[in-house]
Amino acid sequence: MTDPVAALSGLLGGKGWLSGDDTAPYRRDWLDRYGVAPLGVARPATTAEVAGVVRICREAGIALVPQGGNTGLCAAAVAARPDSVILSLARMNAIGAPDRDSGTILVEAGVVLAALHDALEPHGLIFPMHLGAEGSARIGGLVGTNAGGSHASRYGMMSDLVLGLEVVLPDGAVWDGLRAVQKDNAGYPLRKLFCGSEGTLGVVTRAVLRLFPAPKQRATALLAFPDLASMVAFGTFLREEAGEFLSGLEFFSGLGMSLVTKHLPEIVLPFATRGAAYLLVELASSSRHVPLDDILAFTLEKGMEDGLVGDGALAMSETQRAHFWRLREEQPEGQRLEGDQLKHDIAVPPGAIARFVEAGAALCEGILPGVRINPFGHLGDGNIHYNLSPPEGRDGFEGKGPQIGEALARLATGMGGSFAAEHGLGRTKIALADAIRSPQERALMARLKAAVDPSGTMNPGVLVDAAE
Amino acid sequence: MTDPVAALSGLLGGKGWLSGDDTAPYRRDWLDRYGVAPLGVARPATTAEVAGVVRICREAGIALVPQGGNTGLCAAAVAARPDSVILSLARMNAIGAPDRDSGTILVEAGVVLAALHDALEPHGLIFPMHLGAEGSARIGGLVGTNAGGSHASRYGMMSDLVLGLEVVLPDGAVWDGLRAVQKDNAGYPLRKLFCGSEGTLGVVTRAVLRLFPAPKQRATALLAFPDLASMVAFGTFLREEAGEFLSGLEFFSGLGMSLVTKHLPEIVLPFATRGAAYLLVELASSSRHVPLDDILAFTLEKGMEDGLVGDGALAMSETQRAHFWRLREEQPEGQRLEGDQLKHDIAVPPGAIARFVEAGAALCEGILPGVRINPFGHLGDGNIHYNLSPPEGRDGFEGKGPQIGEALARLATGMGGSFAAEHGLGRTKIALADAIRSPQERALMARLKAAVDPSGTMNPGVLVDAAE
Repeated sequence: MTDPVAALSGLLGGKGWLSGDDTAPYRRDWLDRYGVAPLGVARPATTAEVAGVVRICREAGIALVPQGGNTGLCAAAVAARPDSVILSLARMNAIGAPDRDSGTILVEAGVVLAALHDALEPHGLIFPMHLGAEGSARIGGLVGTNAGGSHASRYGMMSDLVLGLEVVLPDGAVWDGLRAVQKDNAGYPLRKLFCGSEGTLGVVTRAVLRLFPAPKQRATALLAFPDLASMVAFGTFLREEAGEFLSGLEFFSGLGMSLVTKHLPEIVLPFATRGAAYLLVELASSSRHVPLDDILAFTLEKGMEDGLVGDGALAMSETQRAHFWRLREEQPEGQRLEGDQLKHDIAVPPGAIARFVEAGAALCEGILPGVRINPFGHLGDGNIHYNLSPPEGRDGFEGKGPQIGEALARLATGMGGSFAAEHGLGRTKIALADAIRSPQERALMARLKAAVDPSGTMNPGVLVDAAE
Repeated sequence: MTDPVAALSGLLGGKGWLSGDDTAPYRRDWLDRYGVAPLGVARPATTAEVAGVVRICREAGIALVPQGGNTGLCAAAVAARPDSVILSLARMNAIGAPDRDSGTILVEAGVVLAALHDALEPHGLIFPMHLGAEGSARIGGLVGTNAGGSHASRYGMMSDLVLGLEVVLPDGAVWDGLRAVQKDNAGYPLRKLFCGSEGTLGVVTRAVLRLFPAPKQRATALLAFPDLASMVAFGTFLREEAGEFLSGLEFFSGLGMSLVTKHLPEIVLPFATRGAAYLLVELASSSRHVPLDDILAFTLEKGMEDGLVGDGALAMSETQRAHFWRLREEQPEGQRLEGDQLKHDIAVPPGAIARFVEAGAALCEGILPGVRINPFGHLGDGNIHYNLSPPEGRDGFEGKGPQIGEALARLATGMGGSFAAEHGLGRTKIALADAIRSPQERALMARLKAAVDPSGTMNPGVLVDAAE
């Protein structure tokens, strides 16, 4: 057998094959917690080169780890063992011309999300996926993790926004599923199956995405609530009064707000009232004829009248709007600057958010008294980043992270929710998943994996262990 | 081995097991073209009974054919051979209480779609799936075929509206995937995989569905266009000006209109102008504060000014609105009353509709001169029911149906579209699918089938033949 490293180097050339110290920028995950030095990093420039890399690795039994922007939070895109090759799609970053009549665009997997936003701007079209990592996250990784973000309740997750895919399968064959239609039921929904498969079933190389007309106007408000139950009730009212305009419905906690103002003092609340919870509401419309500001003001006044909303402010300028969003987006940074943290990616039915947060707090307090709870996330879809900081004055969690994680996961699933809402399982949540998911579910996933990747070289150790 | 018929009869009792002539109402497909008498019809009342039926059939090697409302157009829900059991979910028709704060509801698979609409009405909530067969189609069948219908471009297909599923797997185990959240990435997207799997991977017994607030107002118009290209251009304009309100964007042809007025003379166009194409536009809003009629009138006037729209009428009452919808909904009936027909369930990117219809007409004319083309469907998602009537004065298609079907399928897929948009493959499109889909795609589907249903008893001969 040819030496696989020589074969990869020969196939890809100097720009396409990195080894030794050159692999350093690709080695560690976003949180710098996982990742060993791989055999090398393959940086193919074409689908054919990707297929070549897949074949060489498969023949040599080398674990192949696809990597997009490497912004994942579950370590799915770094190597767990040294006899791995990281496959970076970064050089495949072509953006096609948008089709305005059809609302579609063809992009390569290595396109950075923010670059796609920028490319669409002059065309009056949007790709409505927004998340904190959009300046680094790449389309292939967003597909692989079925990313959600802050606009998902209006526009959907990646799975809803991907019309077609090109995927290099584990045997090196290329599946051309680059259709450009919403309605396609010519067999099993392969395009959906690959969304969220975390590189374990193949390598996404190109995608046809769904586009929408750019909004012609927006209205944005920041609100304070006396408690989460009031926020949830107001959320229901908003959906019923302004359902189709709701682009953002982002909440964060009183603790989160105080951590942000402590560590990022240039950020200030636009009103004096402090709340147990805050909500950023954004409405957007494709029509100029909609009194969007009035609609938002009306809901806000009604919410105050009914005693749900404690205080609030409407953004009067684009600068103010950007400031409101920054308040929300700096929530993770405020907490990071506070020290060690535990992140949980929970979803519950939106109506259960207050109950979850309260019951979760009791569970956490029982396991680690004084632990500080900082839930924030997406009211529209019930996605709660239920993050924890250590008890005041302490550095860590006394090794109780896994116990807390499992307790919260069981609480969420018991409410019809998920313990892996939009970050996936990766490597870090396999043990948790195996503790939570039923034997039927685990077996089904293992069988799907074995059916599509019988040799097990595609991102092994991620999502599910194929041995039943 | 116990006699399986005796075992099924014993398990299900007199209400739950039908044989002989009692199976007649379940035997033939909607179009009365397919279906042989089965061993019997199982009508379980609980998930446990479904699991029992699945186990008995699997052990005896009996083909099990799940059936919902039996409104499918591709014969997936009737028996192809006598040693089959039809599994009707009709007795499992419980509807849970809707969760208003979360926008969710739990229903059994046998619930008829219209019954769900009715049940939600007093709660001010909608399940936004609408199609001609809604008075008979059941939730399980809608999931199995991943139904689309007339509201899909705004609200999505079943796959987008199903949050959780309970499925009896081919080995009789029950997969409890009854989560109630949009964001769930705890492994492969099983809920998505079952949507559109046509009963070949298991039996859907319950579903958690996504609900939306009922619109507080609607505005509806019927428009005539000189040609399809003008209609497509107007569709783009509508999306850009009234994108989030567009609930219905249904088109039909000049021929379709003339067949309807010929066979259903009580139906009249609300204006004198005749067009090559007609479009029913419906806007809906959850807000009372939106000038919806003005927005529709504005777009219509602009469309006329720009020479895109030939004529049009706004519905001034609920009666008129119902009449406009009837014009659209009777399109299939008008054509059926004209005699023999060929149905095609095409999707192309919306911007390619006019090109597809024109190029398709040339293909059809080349194969069977004089054949009459009656395309109608959904402008928002590019779904064209490209149906044909025989040449004037003739009864049939001279056996040229398959040739025409394959030519249209290749034309659609060549444009990035689909030859099986929302009706699925069933039994009737397997040969066509195998002619069109790539060996990679076919092999992948066969492997998925074999992985989940290794004994091959779940609806064999539907969607894909498991032998690679």
